[in-house]
Amino acid sequence: MRRTTFSLLSPDRGGRAGVVVDWLIMAVILVNVAAVMMETVDSVASQYGPVFLWLEICSVALFTVEYLGRVWSAVEHPAYSGPISGRVRFASRPLLIVDLLAILPFYLALFGVGGDLRVIRALRLFKLFRYSQSLSFFTRVLKRKKTDLVVVTVVDAAVLVVVSSLVYLVEHQAQPETFTSIPQTLWWGVATLTTVGYGDMYPVTPLGQLLGGITAVLGIGLFALPASIIASGFLEEARSATTCPQCGTRIDHTDDATDSSVSGRLENSR
Amino acid sequence: MRRTTFSLLSPDRGGRAGVVVDWLIMAVILVNVAAVMMETVDSVASQYGPVFLWLEICSVALFTVEYLGRVWSAVEHPAYSGPISGRVRFASRPLLIVDLLAILPFYLALFGVGGDLRVIRALRLFKLFRYSQSLSFFTRVLKRKKTDLVVVTVVDAAVLVVVSSLVYLVEHQAQPETFTSIPQTLWWGVATLTTVGYGDMYPVTPLGQLLGGITAVLGIGLFALPASIIASGFLEEARSATTCPQCGTRIDHTDDATDSSVSGRLENSR
Amino acid sequence: MRRTTFSLLSPDRGGRAGVVVDWLIMAVILVNVAAVMMETVDSVASQYGPVFLWLEICSVALFTVEYLGRVWSAVEHPAYSGPISGRVRFASRPLLIVDLLAILPFYLALFGVGGDLRVIRALRLFKLFRYSQSLSFFTRVLKRKKTDLVVVTVVDAAVLVVVSSLVYLVEHQAQPETFTSIPQTLWWGVATLTTVGYGDMYPVTPLGQLLGGITAVLGIGLFALPASIIASGFLEEARSATTCPQCGTRIDHTDDATDSSVSGRLENSR
Amino acid sequence: MRRTTFSLLSPDRGGRAGVVVDWLIMAVILVNVAAVMMETVDSVASQYGPVFLWLEICSVALFTVEYLGRVWSAVEHPAYSGPISGRVRFASRPLLIVDLLAILPFYLALFGVGGDLRVIRALRLFKLFRYSQSLSFFTRVLKRKKTDLVVVTVVDAAVLVVVSSLVYLVEHQAQPETFTSIPQTLWWGVATLTTVGYGDMYPVTPLGQLLGGITAVLGIGLFALPASIIASGFLEEARSATTCPQCGTRIDHTDDATDSSVSGRLENSR
Repeated sequence: MRRTTFSLLSPDRGGRAGVVVDWLIMAVILVNVAAVMMETVDSVASQYGPVFLWLEICSVALFTVEYLGRVWSAVEHPAYSGPISGRVRFASRPLLIVDLLAILPFYLALFGVGGDLRVIRALRLFKLFRYSQSLSFFTRVLKRKKTDLVVVTVVDAAVLVVVSSLVYLVEHQAQPETFTSIPQTLWWGVATLTTVGYGDMYPVTPLGQLLGGITAVLGIGLFALPASIIASGFLEEARSATTCPQCGTRIDHTDDATDSSVSGRLENSR
Repeated sequence: MRRTTFSLLSPDRGGRAGVVVDWLIMAVILVNVAAVMMETVDSVASQYGPVFLWLEICSVALFTVEYLGRVWSAVEHPAYSGPISGRVRFASRPLLIVDLLAILPFYLALFGVGGDLRVIRALRLFKLFRYSQSLSFFTRVLKRKKTDLVVVTVVDAAVLVVVSSLVYLVEHQAQPETFTSIPQTLWWGVATLTTVGYGDMYPVTPLGQLLGGITAVLGIGLFALPASIIASGFLEEARSATTCPQCGTRIDHTDDATDSSVSGRLENSR
Repeated sequence: MRRTTFSLLSPDRGGRAGVVVDWLIMAVILVNVAAVMMETVDSVASQYGPVFLWLEICSVALFTVEYLGRVWSAVEHPAYSGPISGRVRFASRPLLIVDLLAILPFYLALFGVGGDLRVIRALRLFKLFRYSQSLSFFTRVLKRKKTDLVVVTVVDAAVLVVVSSLVYLVEHQAQPETFTSIPQTLWWGVATLTTVGYGDMYPVTPLGQLLGGITAVLGIGLFALPASIIASGFLEEARSATTCPQCGTRIDHTDDATDSSVSGRLENSR
Repeated sequence: MRRTTFSLLSPDRGGRAGVVVDWLIMAVILVNVAAVMMETVDSVASQYGPVFLWLEICSVALFTVEYLGRVWSAVEHPAYSGPISGRVRFASRPLLIVDLLAILPFYLALFGVGGDLRVIRALRLFKLFRYSQSLSFFTRVLKRKKTDLVVVTVVDAAVLVVVSSLVYLVEHQAQPETFTSIPQTLWWGVATLTTVGYGDMYPVTPLGQLLGGITAVLGIGLFALPASIIASGFLEEARSATTCPQCGTRIDHTDDATDSSVSGRLENSR
């Protein structure tokens, strides 16, 4: 029976029944996230309060059964064979911690601990990670481009600090109520460099506007780089990730086929 | 005569007369869309009311003749040969439904059904799809990159929900009138992640601004990806789509030449 | 003497004296554009009025001499050899029309014609096109990607009209003062699709915000495409444009080396 | 001892002690930048005033020792061997000038010169350049794409001047308080072309909005180009920069391997 539980709860296993379990859990997660969002709308919350309460109780019951089932049946996996040490190691995996965080606030609230953590329940969305090949593909792309993204992040952070300090220096006297401090001006800096431009803070002096214009131009040159870098990572990851046509094993060409990737070469150049 | 009608109404057929018919229909569509738009300008509507009415009557007459002609002559096409079943299948094609929607509101209004559907007439623009190689090229690009775009859309939707929930949690108390609920905060989230930044909603607390800054930076990294993906699809589609220099048939290299396309590989990697 | 004039006025010709003439004209153009801009600043205009007047008179004098000199010496060029027909054809070239437009308003104003055309003088900037290799390089890039840019422009225009019509339909009743008509809503549509987001118009109804969010997401997918397309044109143009190492002639590989360019293939696929 | 000082102060030299010195200086720089930013927050400044003062004194002391140590030991480097001329040449290098600017304001303030230059201290961040491989990698990317970036900058500047002049011409009469002059309208132009769109200036006349819409569309086509160009430079630089697997020397393939880079070809095409 433990073996059956293990199969049922593993994505892409457990036959027809496993698929039903997978889709059931996914549906409950999505309904939960939608419920958390709708519950913050006053008119909806006051009218359907009991519905949300019952949905929460049923969801937590299901997620608790799921969590306990996973931990209990984990020893079926060869990597987690020890009855206690294996289960502890299994329960420490990020996805299992997400599973625990999805139910813990409810039990804490029963004992009057934790205050109003309703919104935290939106993080139940992360439970979907288990079923998402999109996200695991995306994670591999980010990993592949890590070095490049770090280079850009360092440069972007330095540019943000410098332009914000300069604009604060220029605008503080003209608008002491708006550009109150450098940390506050960082907010202007991010809104400008990312070209969001809310309009709650903007320079009004000629020198401030000159600096602001340079900042905006720098912004689309520097802050748009991550998108280009991730996009090229997408292409490379898709090229290097193939499955063996015979046995279906995923073959990672990272070591040889992607010599030409930026991160790989960058590593070499150090 | 049915054969002639069929040729006349098929784009790029019917000889000189067919070209005249094509251009006539296209011109009437464009004039219609312009009319719908100008009719919403009060000063124009009050002055040229009768002109718009007559234009509408003539356009509907023409489009009705066109629609009936297409359905009647459809049986000339070998794929729709059955006198009734063929015509029904033909009339169910998306472009034919668009043709029907372009005239139906007028006839419904004659019988007092449907209310004020004037603006719906702007959708007559979609009738142009039949004549647009741009759009069919574009559709092929989107089809080719479907898998990648789905990956990005899933990730983007998850990021949108999570950042909006967190910012709601942080800003709701400081600005209960602005950040009223999570669904309302989703509007802020989209405006920030796409870097539109209208300025109707923005965080004012330090923690909210920190989250908002991270959201904006994530936005240009994640929400700008579709543009890069579509652009690379553009390049690949243009490379793989060639016509035979002898007979003019379109040759699609998708199966072999574009093994290296992201979507193709991604399929393999599953 | 006519031959000397011709050489002096041709960019990259006329030896040392020609270079001096080139730089003189370029400097006068830049000073002129700066003057036109500064003259609109009231405090500057009232203080330095006479300076601007004299600068204008001297500039027009120089540009008039330059214009007459170009037309007079044009017949030295083999392609414009006819004394009258050659000069007329030469004077009809875009750059010569720009030269004429740079001086004509001044003479019209002398005869009381044309009103206040001072700002038109900012267009003298276009006279720099003659000296700019950047701009000619850029023009070639645009020409190479013409077909792709047309495809995207058609799709973008259609999307703009459709989303603006829909948002007008949804928002007109809630904000009749802001979303007054579809043409006015097009302004919102452009500001959203380009992610500028001034904040003077934005939807406030839930349905309008849903449409607005979809519009913003579509915007970065579709309206950012031209940048990617031009960027890839940049790369291809730079690759295909080489000069013969022996004689210095520019060799355009367009016909063979860039078979793989999007526009080339698109042409083939038709 | 001079030799030891030289090794200790050179990044990636001086053994374990050198690493400690490197990390110590980096940490002090980061703490300094954070302090400068926090000091502008009134509540923090009034409470922790003495802490900031002592931090400043200690930092300047350390940076002074570091600066004198670098200049004194510079003659150990073969390129700066002359006791005076070598040290002067060494002290003229950009990084050494940054080091000097990091301490000079403090000493000037002691003698009552320079006024309130506290914020200038944020520029101490630039001292980190010495330790940053990210920034040196980034500088090489910018150098590689210099020609392309210049082409785009020239075109962008011309577009900015022309659209701003035209919009000023159209909007000045409708909004004389907002579009006061062309230089002021340049601020609108930058905010629109970069798609920041603060919302402090925007056209309200139909013609102005038409021009504004065209400007916004041009903006994402032209002002987003630098990001694409820098991104492709990133890829190329990473490809061409490898180290010899035997001796670790950095090998720059610029001359042969990157023939296909835009800037290289552009140079050829001239």
